Amino acid sequence: MSSAPQNSPVLETARRAREAAAVLAPLPRTARDGALLAMADALEARTAEIVEANAEDVAKARAAGTAESIIDRLTLNPERVAAIAADVRHVVGLPDPVGEVLRGSTLPNGLELRQIRVPLGVVGIIYEARPNVTVDAAALCLKSGNAVLLRGSSSAYASNTALVAVLRDAVVEAGLPADAVQLVPGESRDSVTELMTARGLVDVLIPRGGASLIRTVVEGSTVPVIETGTGNCHVYVDRAADLDMAVDILVNAKAQRPSVCNAAETVLVHRDIADEFLPRALKALADAGVTVHGDETWQEASPEVVPATDEDWATEYLSYDIAAAVVPDLDAAVAHIRRWTSGHTEAVVTRDTAAARRFVSLVDSTAVMVNASTRFTDGGQFGFGAEIGISTQKLHARGPMGLPELTSTKYVVTGDGHIRD
Amino acid sequence: MSSAPQNSPVLETARRAREAAAVLAPLPRTARDGALLAMADALEARTAEIVEANAEDVAKARAAGTAESIIDRLTLNPERVAAIAADVRHVVGLPDPVGEVLRGSTLPNGLELRQIRVPLGVVGIIYEARPNVTVDAAALCLKSGNAVLLRGSSSAYASNTALVAVLRDAVVEAGLPADAVQLVPGESRDSVTELMTARGLVDVLIPRGGASLIRTVVEGSTVPVIETGTGNCHVYVDRAADLDMAVDILVNAKAQRPSVCNAAETVLVHRDIADEFLPRALKALADAGVTVHGDETWQEASPEVVPATDEDWATEYLSYDIAAAVVPDLDAAVAHIRRWTSGHTEAVVTRDTAAARRFVSLVDSTAVMVNASTRFTDGGQFGFGAEIGISTQKLHARGPMGLPELTSTKYVVTGDGHIRD
Repeated sequence: MSSAPQNSPVLETARRAREAAAVLAPLPRTARDGALLAMADALEARTAEIVEANAEDVAKARAAGTAESIIDRLTLNPERVAAIAADVRHVVGLPDPVGEVLRGSTLPNGLELRQIRVPLGVVGIIYEARPNVTVDAAALCLKSGNAVLLRGSSSAYASNTALVAVLRDAVVEAGLPADAVQLVPGESRDSVTELMTARGLVDVLIPRGGASLIRTVVEGSTVPVIETGTGNCHVYVDRAADLDMAVDILVNAKAQRPSVCNAAETVLVHRDIADEFLPRALKALADAGVTVHGDETWQEASPEVVPATDEDWATEYLSYDIAAAVVPDLDAAVAHIRRWTSGHTEAVVTRDTAAARRFVSLVDSTAVMVNASTRFTDGGQFGFGAEIGISTQKLHARGPMGLPELTSTKYVVTGDGHIRD
Repeated sequence: MSSAPQNSPVLETARRAREAAAVLAPLPRTARDGALLAMADALEARTAEIVEANAEDVAKARAAGTAESIIDRLTLNPERVAAIAADVRHVVGLPDPVGEVLRGSTLPNGLELRQIRVPLGVVGIIYEARPNVTVDAAALCLKSGNAVLLRGSSSAYASNTALVAVLRDAVVEAGLPADAVQLVPGESRDSVTELMTARGLVDVLIPRGGASLIRTVVEGSTVPVIETGTGNCHVYVDRAADLDMAVDILVNAKAQRPSVCNAAETVLVHRDIADEFLPRALKALADAGVTVHGDETWQEASPEVVPATDEDWATEYLSYDIAAAVVPDLDAAVAHIRRWTSGHTEAVVTRDTAAARRFVSLVDSTAVMVNASTRFTDGGQFGFGAEIGISTQKLHARGPMGLPELTSTKYVVTGDGHIRD
């Protein structure tokens, strides 16, 4: 069913990945774990060449006037390479998703039915900036029996090239096909477009990055996509909230790390407690350096509050800013959320079990927090041991994706000459 | 993220479905079951008007010179309407997928984590010919808490209009929103195109029908799609096969009902047993009225065998025809299958446990049968109690889709003021 062009370096890469995937799929855990351990060892042994290649990217970024915070994320040093290798060893210890039996039964006619997890096949990851993602994604895909196509940022091209060379050598040394791990050739957007049309060669694309990248991939791809990441998250402070708890959760959700997708972007407050709550919230948010973009009630509560518009309700600030509104009741909070959310994470703070239950059942997002910070929506926090991204779509995977989300399933049906009547 | 046109009758329908879905999602099982029972009662009570509307479609089809087999599939009579109502009552008795807890744990910090099944929201079904699918799909979607958009064949438009009118009245009588069940307006292909671009309004599209319909939807849709149905299924007769069993399975897989997706289209035979097996298979297939399109070895075995070309390996005949080849070993059979399969169902016939194990692990299809007919890949046969289609894709659902496959999941995390360090 592919309408992709027949030949290009990207499609050649995808074809080789497909061949490698066929070799990987039937391998037992020990073979995959052996390759992961070889990867970790090789990263440490060849730290010098990795750091040297990375220095090129850093020099280029600096010459281009890139912000220091981004340069920091790009930079590798021996300690960071060692930490990346340690992460790979951690993946070795995670439970093997491949071969897990999800359903099993003996049918009335004696047929034995099993539904087992199998690798997806070829996984394409499109991501930005940080070179550690290159190794993380390769390790998680290999652990789950998949061949991976890595399409990193052009600003990390030298680093990624060096890292992937090291990983491929290690994979070969462990007796697996080198093409289990490949960097997608080319630094231009064209290579992304080609990946998007490689239907039949690539089983899934996972874009990780800014909203425009994700939108482009989701709308233009004929390859199945798992949408990740945008988080316009809400905290609703109910009439029955413990106000101390509400202030703590609000400040944590907004300001503990504002640049990530599970940080809160809007606070909604029940009007019955607004008089008491708003001054306390305003003080705590101001102490944390947060600017409030509020509706009229919030504006009346403090001259520091910036008037909010519809754009504020829609915005994922990823900064020390928060939109704020007062609502007449829980259902109005839910209606606001349903209208504006990106479907990532919403929190309710309440002591009222009925209110908590209603909020949970009416809010249609990936994760709903009751009396807890939105910041907990995270594969590590959820105890998955690893995360390839946070899906905000409803099909296949929703929420933090660990190893099981990198698999499909297969039915195996065993009989003894069974035929259908 | 929708780039869909802002207004059209189809999009209006989708918007109303979205509203209805929000009402359906939090409803308990009893409310949904009540509506299903009302639907079954109403179908029986209003049989006359359904049959009358159907007669219009049948008359039109007959006037257009439609084949009798298709007219038979289109035709409703009181017995068939009663059977459709009975199917709806059967769905009432199936386990409720909504609210099922898939994972649950208490995290080290005391947070209580649950992953629960929730409805997908708005499900669009695009299907052909048979009006019973209209009721089936509506019942399965309602049981799983989803609003459904039904886009049936224009040849069944009068029947579908009557059926949906009856279903909507019943839904309202049960206290649920009428727009839980809607027929997509318009009989032209434009209405399909509009559904395909209704991203953000429709959560998933399930095309059921011919290969060209499925390809159009898969390649052109910005709404997530579940690909169903094409089945180029294989039977591999291993060197270590019980030949009586192999003949029985082959004939059953090909000829028990050739028009369905889990019927076999190609038989591959290990060369070591070809001399003994081919004459027996040829006789049994001839007795069943099957034409064999074979490679040279098959052609040498009988003058009745038609020479096979690459097109035969690729074809889903859906008729009393089968492609046939002799292969040097199991791995060659697997290579043939990997090259030509649509990924639906493949069977191996063997007494050799190692061969069975290798075939199962190397074949990357939705279902793999060991010593059983391909015809068993079916939601009913698998004991799911209902089937909305058979997915041949790897994401979300693979194989027969029952009620759980019509759901997504949501994480519910409960704390007591938990914030992140």
